[in-house]
Amino acid sequence: MTTKDFGAREGEQAVELPTKPDAGVYFIGRIHTPWKERKDCPRNARGSDAVCTVVLDERYRAGLKDVETCTHLVLLYWMDKAPRNLVLQVPGHYGAQHGTFALRSPARPNPIAMSVVRLIGIEDGTLSVVGLDCLDGTPLLDIKPYFASTDSVPEAVVGWHRRD
Amino acid sequence: MTTKDFGAREGEQAVELPTKPDAGVYFIGRIHTPWKERKDCPRNARGSDAVCTVVLDERYRAGLKDVETCTHLVLLYWMDKAPRNLVLQVPGHYGAQHGTFALRSPARPNPIAMSVVRLIGIEDGTLSVVGLDCLDGTPLLDIKPYFASTDSVPEAVVGWHRRD
Repeated sequence: MTTKDFGAREGEQAVELPTKPDAGVYFIGRIHTPWKERKDCPRNARGSDAVCTVVLDERYRAGLKDVETCTHLVLLYWMDKAPRNLVLQVPGHYGAQHGTFALRSPARPNPIAMSVVRLIGIEDGTLSVVGLDCLDGTPLLDIKPYFASTDSVPEAVVGWHRRD
Repeated sequence: MTTKDFGAREGEQAVELPTKPDAGVYFIGRIHTPWKERKDCPRNARGSDAVCTVVLDERYRAGLKDVETCTHLVLLYWMDKAPRNLVLQVPGHYGAQHGTFALRSPARPNPIAMSVVRLIGIEDGTLSVVGLDCLDGTPLLDIKPYFASTDSVPEAVVGWHRRD
């Protein structure tokens, strides 16, 4: 193994990934945001009020029926620019080592991001939403209705985040 | 196309999927629940208080550092028993037609489920959690910390669900 295998920063740890994937995903559309480079992206999804657009491929558009009745949606998307082999990371803005599964970092075995967004409107298979922090052109994997009854936990705490 | 291509129920509509996937996912562990068949699963994730277990593969376990400080987690998992080509569906318990992206049905182009769970404890790479409704043996894709600041929206409404 080279130094690179252990990640770019001291305190990071990489693992050897399986030789082949277990299943395949389709990119069903693209997300368009104002941010062309990683350094321009807001720190997190509440860091900007920018209206972003989600363009669903023609083939899937019938699946949007009734989505316009939702105030909020869950979007899943593919963060294909990040390494997938890190299990311990030292994010620059925290400066401390954390496990990958305690972070929302794009670097993870399956680089699937989850964002809760507010729906502004839908026209011709294009959704206008607020609440994203990803790069322009990010591939879309899924759109789901956000149910407060199962998805909202106002009292949830991430203990390490309070301490850092 | 045969009738089967249009789904099992009247009012359902299927599309032709791309001939090959755009990216691959790794199954990073397995979820164990009391439910061995689809008919036994609770209707949704608040339908049972059963403690379920999430067994992470050895190779990724270092990634759990600090996860124990989280009260709630987002789990992503792969619902590999459902058809991926339906864009309009008529779920049995609603009896009305809805778009796939207005539903949390396992039938969707990328069968990735998202559940918010309460963490009970972690031991030897196995997480005990409450808030799942999936089949025993379901493949795990990701574990994320749940941040109330970005993930909790108590006022969110799914309009069609109120009406049905």
